Amino acid sequence: MLQDNGFRALDRKECLRLLAKVPVGRVVYTRQALPSVLPVNFSLDDDSSVLLCTSPAAELVRAIDGAVVAFEADEFDAATQSGWSVVVTGRAAVVRDPAEHERLLRDGPRSWMPMRNGVFVRIESEMISGRELTGGHGTH
Amino acid sequence: MLQDNGFRALDRKECLRLLAKVPVGRVVYTRQALPSVLPVNFSLDDDSSVLLCTSPAAELVRAIDGAVVAFEADEFDAATQSGWSVVVTGRAAVVRDPAEHERLLRDGPRSWMPMRNGVFVRIESEMISGRELTGGHGTH
Repeated sequence: MLQDNGFRALDRKECLRLLAKVPVGRVVYTRQALPSVLPVNFSLDDDSSVLLCTSPAAELVRAIDGAVVAFEADEFDAATQSGWSVVVTGRAAVVRDPAEHERLLRDGPRSWMPMRNGVFVRIESEMISGRELTGGHGTH
Repeated sequence: MLQDNGFRALDRKECLRLLAKVPVGRVVYTRQALPSVLPVNFSLDDDSSVLLCTSPAAELVRAIDGAVVAFEADEFDAATQSGWSVVVTGRAAVVRDPAEHERLLRDGPRSWMPMRNGVFVRIESEMISGRELTGGHGTH
């Protein structure tokens, strides 16, 4: 579907396929009443939730555990002025179940940051929206 | 400065140099009490504020005009697990001064979306923070 604004809306399946292509996305949350954003590497779990691995001491964990956050990933090409973006919105929570934590130690994302005793955070994919820009414009 | 979490903090000058390298960033704002994020192409003005060009009818304009938003840009390389991110936080406002609008029609960013009668939005760079990850870890 081509929208009025020149973007094509992507369905959930397309969104998940694109999300699986990129290693880094951005967690969007509220911090001290201000909009805040932090890029992180991630993976998708079997149920399509977004998984992060971070330090248990990270400010991010305190800020988002139990909160509704947005998670965004995209890819754009300046040469063709085209690309896509996907936003997952849902509740974030630290994985506290020991068996689940063990499973993610084997199969979950590995942090790009040096850390010990990392914790996993799951963002439920309650809402997924995406759009594609096919490019070739560049007008005011 | 290498922080405890493995990132090096970037100073304002480094942040602005990196921001100038990339064509697309992400506006982070609050929409219906939920965190929201939208990628846009942008340019930096002479005073280091972030400039966007968008449709006057865009929901984004209504949501951010007069509000404090975050604007994020980054570049990461999965092969080396390294990269940088910069966040500008400041008040966003539609450029309403006709002379300023005329100047931006000449020198400002051009939208990648097809549109007529685009409006410019300026995000003041009241706070700029950035960090660099030098990579090569990948542990839990």
